[in-house]
Amino acid sequence: MKEEEISYYEKKVSENPINLDDWKAGVHNKTLKIAIIGIGRIGLPTSLMIAKAGYITFGIDIKQDYVEKINQGGGDPPIKFILDEPNLPEILKEVISNGKFSASTDFVKYISLANIIIICVPTPITSQKVPDYSKINEVIKNIGSLKELIKDKIVIIESTVSPLYVKNIGIPLLEKISGLEINKDFWIASCPERADPGNIIKNLKSIPRIVGACNENASKIVASFYKTVFDVNIIQVSNPRTANSVKLIENIFRVVNIAFSNEIAQLSRLLDIDYMEVLKGAKSKYNFLPHYPGPGVGGPCLPANPYFLITDGYLVSFTPNLVRLATEINQRQPAHITELIFEGLNKIKLPISETPIAVLGISYKPDVKDTQMSSVFPILNDLRQYGASITLYDPYFANEEEQGLKIELNYKFIKNNYPIILVHTGHNEFRSQEFMDFLKECKNLKMIIDCQNIYEKEDLPKGIYYIGVGRPLKYLE
Amino acid sequence: MKEEEISYYEKKVSENPINLDDWKAGVHNKTLKIAIIGIGRIGLPTSLMIAKAGYITFGIDIKQDYVEKINQGGGDPPIKFILDEPNLPEILKEVISNGKFSASTDFVKYISLANIIIICVPTPITSQKVPDYSKINEVIKNIGSLKELIKDKIVIIESTVSPLYVKNIGIPLLEKISGLEINKDFWIASCPERADPGNIIKNLKSIPRIVGACNENASKIVASFYKTVFDVNIIQVSNPRTANSVKLIENIFRVVNIAFSNEIAQLSRLLDIDYMEVLKGAKSKYNFLPHYPGPGVGGPCLPANPYFLITDGYLVSFTPNLVRLATEINQRQPAHITELIFEGLNKIKLPISETPIAVLGISYKPDVKDTQMSSVFPILNDLRQYGASITLYDPYFANEEEQGLKIELNYKFIKNNYPIILVHTGHNEFRSQEFMDFLKECKNLKMIIDCQNIYEKEDLPKGIYYIGVGRPLKYLE
Repeated sequence: MKEEEISYYEKKVSENPINLDDWKAGVHNKTLKIAIIGIGRIGLPTSLMIAKAGYITFGIDIKQDYVEKINQGGGDPPIKFILDEPNLPEILKEVISNGKFSASTDFVKYISLANIIIICVPTPITSQKVPDYSKINEVIKNIGSLKELIKDKIVIIESTVSPLYVKNIGIPLLEKISGLEINKDFWIASCPERADPGNIIKNLKSIPRIVGACNENASKIVASFYKTVFDVNIIQVSNPRTANSVKLIENIFRVVNIAFSNEIAQLSRLLDIDYMEVLKGAKSKYNFLPHYPGPGVGGPCLPANPYFLITDGYLVSFTPNLVRLATEINQRQPAHITELIFEGLNKIKLPISETPIAVLGISYKPDVKDTQMSSVFPILNDLRQYGASITLYDPYFANEEEQGLKIELNYKFIKNNYPIILVHTGHNEFRSQEFMDFLKECKNLKMIIDCQNIYEKEDLPKGIYYIGVGRPLKYLE
Repeated sequence: MKEEEISYYEKKVSENPINLDDWKAGVHNKTLKIAIIGIGRIGLPTSLMIAKAGYITFGIDIKQDYVEKINQGGGDPPIKFILDEPNLPEILKEVISNGKFSASTDFVKYISLANIIIICVPTPITSQKVPDYSKINEVIKNIGSLKELIKDKIVIIESTVSPLYVKNIGIPLLEKISGLEINKDFWIASCPERADPGNIIKNLKSIPRIVGACNENASKIVASFYKTVFDVNIIQVSNPRTANSVKLIENIFRVVNIAFSNEIAQLSRLLDIDYMEVLKGAKSKYNFLPHYPGPGVGGPCLPANPYFLITDGYLVSFTPNLVRLATEINQRQPAHITELIFEGLNKIKLPISETPIAVLGISYKPDVKDTQMSSVFPILNDLRQYGASITLYDPYFANEEEQGLKIELNYKFIKNNYPIILVHTGHNEFRSQEFMDFLKECKNLKMIIDCQNIYEKEDLPKGIYYIGVGRPLKYLE
């Protein structure tokens, strides 16, 4: 058990306290210059919103061609994910044409010019399930190597990091390389991003931000800066480790509840209960929040975030076993889908080997073009190992290739020779009336496996089998 | 994997289908007679609401003196828990004086008279953590032994039972003893109670009811009956096992989330993070629902409900490990409180043996007089094993004895000789300004251990230590 008291400050403030009035004027008059390092999925929309608020904003990235395309308003052919995110292309055009925003690979020049440096580089996990801080550490080293040039700047970390990262790694690294001192020569804050792909601009403008800084004045400045940019509530917490805990806990809450749903879904099938019907009842109670079973969790956050907490747990010899078990339940969920496929195939007396299976949807969630850590990949690996004959379709990847897999142009290929359809992602297209009508034309269709429970039996063709996650196999008559 | 299809019906309806119109008229005109077996915490308020709605209602219980007191409007001295529950005494007086309600031990007479029989007896768990169905099975046997007298009646189970109970135990038992046949001679439905001690009348009038019956007509009748009594939404589900799953899942959801909070609370302390501050931040996200850490879960539902699901899992060789782990984390939480006490004692350099400890609050939750499965008991056992000198106080049990322990008349005893106060239950009295002022007069007070995190450090006397659950030890200066 630790003996020290918690301090509001990560380290005591020394002789050069931050000048609150000067900084507040810089926020108020928008005279502060802002550099964002890493202008990808989160960093770009963040930069654009900062520029739109009136600050001179520099977006820094390492890929020259990417940076050029950004400066051309998206380029031609346009960068894929930019056009995906609602409102982003319009804002990009606006802040480029009014001169508030420019992208560059010139790290030294723009970091030196900026007053606030925001780090938005990705922090994934390795295959050994530990956080991969290589990119963020590299960025911090590069900032530190500017030495005196970074004096009196505020560094804000938006990337996902473990609670102890800033205190144990970030600050010591920056101090060592720069020869400068935190709370005297520079300041650090965490303000973890809380946005969700597909809704990033909307989230940035509505979800409160959590600020935890190295001292109280830095916290106030960062809070007022974010307030001017996003006009959302700003919640100031005691320190960076608390801010980063908030980000992790809110996502791990979802991991745990989705795992609970996946576990009970499996048990419900065995008890001959439709778990979707149970959830419909349970959510009528005021203190119940439904989470839905599925093929597993994907995306940049949910599969990775638990490990940021688990690895900090190692440092204090405390493993959060519930979190670990929940994470593993979700990881095993694709194998449960394979089990459902076997159950279905057995029912229609077909072997898995060489039976044509149409797999619909490869995105990790509905209506976004994103396959990061999508649960479709372990399912496809399983099916290929068993020699299945798979054809893929996803409206967001029509006619493209993804991880070496050819994606069909549309779903019409199913019409004649596919006894099994596996719906992996609940894209709107697969819920459309047109699609439901098409299913009725599929003469050889014998079975639908619905990983997202998007169908009700009344809507499906008669004479086929239906399996959902947490829903017992049903012959539709 | 099961091969049968799910059926809406538990068993196929045979030649004597339930007469929907007759029953609906009985509901509409309130001519149906209703018998409730087990008029305790849930059964009594339920009976009274049924009587208040206009039905002739019989409350059946086995204790003669209890039944007499009920018929006297609560008796003198009044029955404790009746006066506890808001509005209950008034409704009891009303339905006794207008003749709609009477209590009796005469099982045979009133079951024979009733059209609908509602079972509300308790179904606790044994010390081996399996459901104890002895009372409900006894009731079903007694109903069955009336044979032809129970023809054409509907039996409703409100007691908590496992999903498979009605199908595997309830129906076969009733058929065997009575010689009658389900869906021909009698009907069964589950309508699990969803009320919470302290708010029972309020809950009964606001939380939707879940009805799952042995066939569709029985479901409609039971639904319309409950609608006339409670005027809440009625959700009809496919069968009793689905209805009983709903009840369990909504409570187990809370068990899992409280365990998550207890686990992260422990980790947070080790990382020098105040988990209450994390929760304050996290709950600002639209899809987060906070649950708070504490000394464990108590009461009739949360500690017991997971085992109803786990034991059904045994029947299909599927253990819901996340649910089991969550249940065990909550069970170990009292031991964590002991750990906090040791940490605190070490700080103030006192041994646990013979150090006077004031324990405040023995109820399992705030502002109710109820110690069922309260987490205070394992904490007290621990402390006594270590030879601690404990004094107890709880405003709801002032000057009473509970499980052999004398409860003080008020909290003034703390004033002189108690270095440690352990607040177990967050009763309003312990949050009052009067109590906060009193704490400042306690000269020898050195430490407060706050099992419910009800205090902020600003409100407490200076010069003492404070420990919360998930909050690092803090010296207040």
